[in-house]
Amino acid sequence: MSSYVDIDVRVRYAETDQMGIVYHANYLVWFEIGRTELLRQCGFAYRDMEEQEGCFIVVTRASCAFHQVARYDDVLTIRTRVKRLQSRTVDFSYEVLSEDDHRIATGETSHVVTDRSGRPRRFPDRYMEAIRPLVATDD
Amino acid sequence: MSSYVDIDVRVRYAETDQMGIVYHANYLVWFEIGRTELLRQCGFAYRDMEEQEGCFIVVTRASCAFHQVARYDDVLTIRTRVKRLQSRTVDFSYEVLSEDDHRIATGETSHVVTDRSGRPRRFPDRYMEAIRPLVATDD
Amino acid sequence: MSSYVDIDVRVRYAETDQMGIVYHANYLVWFEIGRTELLRQCGFAYRDMEEQEGCFIVVTRASCAFHQVARYDDVLTIRTRVKRLQSRTVDFSYEVLSEDDHRIATGETSHVVTDRSGRPRRFPDRYMEAIRPLVATDD
Amino acid sequence: MSSYVDIDVRVRYAETDQMGIVYHANYLVWFEIGRTELLRQCGFAYRDMEEQEGCFIVVTRASCAFHQVARYDDVLTIRTRVKRLQSRTVDFSYEVLSEDDHRIATGETSHVVTDRSGRPRRFPDRYMEAIRPLVATDD
Repeated sequence: MSSYVDIDVRVRYAETDQMGIVYHANYLVWFEIGRTELLRQCGFAYRDMEEQEGCFIVVTRASCAFHQVARYDDVLTIRTRVKRLQSRTVDFSYEVLSEDDHRIATGETSHVVTDRSGRPRRFPDRYMEAIRPLVATDD
Repeated sequence: MSSYVDIDVRVRYAETDQMGIVYHANYLVWFEIGRTELLRQCGFAYRDMEEQEGCFIVVTRASCAFHQVARYDDVLTIRTRVKRLQSRTVDFSYEVLSEDDHRIATGETSHVVTDRSGRPRRFPDRYMEAIRPLVATDD
Repeated sequence: MSSYVDIDVRVRYAETDQMGIVYHANYLVWFEIGRTELLRQCGFAYRDMEEQEGCFIVVTRASCAFHQVARYDDVLTIRTRVKRLQSRTVDFSYEVLSEDDHRIATGETSHVVTDRSGRPRRFPDRYMEAIRPLVATDD
Repeated sequence: MSSYVDIDVRVRYAETDQMGIVYHANYLVWFEIGRTELLRQCGFAYRDMEEQEGCFIVVTRASCAFHQVARYDDVLTIRTRVKRLQSRTVDFSYEVLSEDDHRIATGETSHVVTDRSGRPRRFPDRYMEAIRPLVATDD
């Protein structure tokens, strides 16, 4: 199993700004798409984790470095890794790659696991076990 | 009491697109701001209606005509009216005006009142009474 | 050639609101994705039309009716048709369909063709010819 | 002159997600509102800098830590400081405060000054002089 999961997004007109490039906040939205897909590749839907377990993965930190611009209609690859996994927290890292494999942006997010009312809780075991094989080793 | 409620928004960079103008979907977001403010002027917060009464005003139709472009940093007035009020539905109409009072856009939204699970229900009486004075007559 | 073009979108967490459903303005964003894909199926990229011809398709009206709710992680099909094509204007219609083929939403947009400075102009001939086969007949 | 500039935003329904809280990417949008207002308090509109000088302030890094949740209809204060100002780059820092003055979020952005085509350039002198008094000292 590879230590990362890729998913493609095509840049929407709505995601551009008057500089003619992607508005920077959209990268955080794409990171979320990367996380969702990574969890799916681990064998479960984050949606089910919320609905069935009442378990939420809340963002506590996010950062992004923008290396090159992306433009409308570009197809970008969101490459997501699990950087660190603990019983109550998880960190992801991301690369956004152009079709010719240049790094458009890189970023990280940190998360805490909570119940429906926002109180910290432990990851359900089966989800933790599902994610563990993806925890980044060297790649 | 006037038959409309005004609230100003300043166009955000995030709301522009690569044409250098406001991306059209944002007008629906501004209409929502207009509704929220109209209800506030009627004496209550829509937030309370959701939280305290479990009563939601769900959008069933929305339309917008774009007459002139709006640009980053423009201050626009969202003018909102109650077009029709019934025990289970409400329609609003909107004008988006420039600082020099040109019509940038006009629109309408239709709504149904629901409970938390999405089932249609009646407006709580006190909210209905609060809104009624704003129902559009000629203005 | 079919008279419509389909493209799938998966609902993003960012597109939900506190009702637990898709925030309604996002449907206009999806309509735009539908238009972009329709033009691509006609053999050209809208991006090229902007860049190479200085020709823009500006939204002048948009409307949407919301029949059923859509939720996070749903895969939806955006089905786009050319409703009317003239030398300076074009209208599209849309259906948003669930995976089990229910109609989630329907809508229409009207557009005017402009040059870079926003002045109305005619469609370039080759683009008009490319789109014409898709103009809706009965289907 | 104070070393920071405050501007209030009211949380929009569109900015919430199905957790019932503000979707995290919106904080970057609010930071941008903070920057725009800071520059305005320095005596100029960022819009003019783009239009008249062909000078753009492009985001190269952004980070945000989320300390407490914010909810629909909350009024939040965006407090913006100039953290560092150089001839070709500028860094801002931000606090997002609740009405009762709790820290909801904190963040930073780094920027490079470019011309219309994205090439790095120096700040125009008069803009640099206008911003300098706001460069953060202890506060």
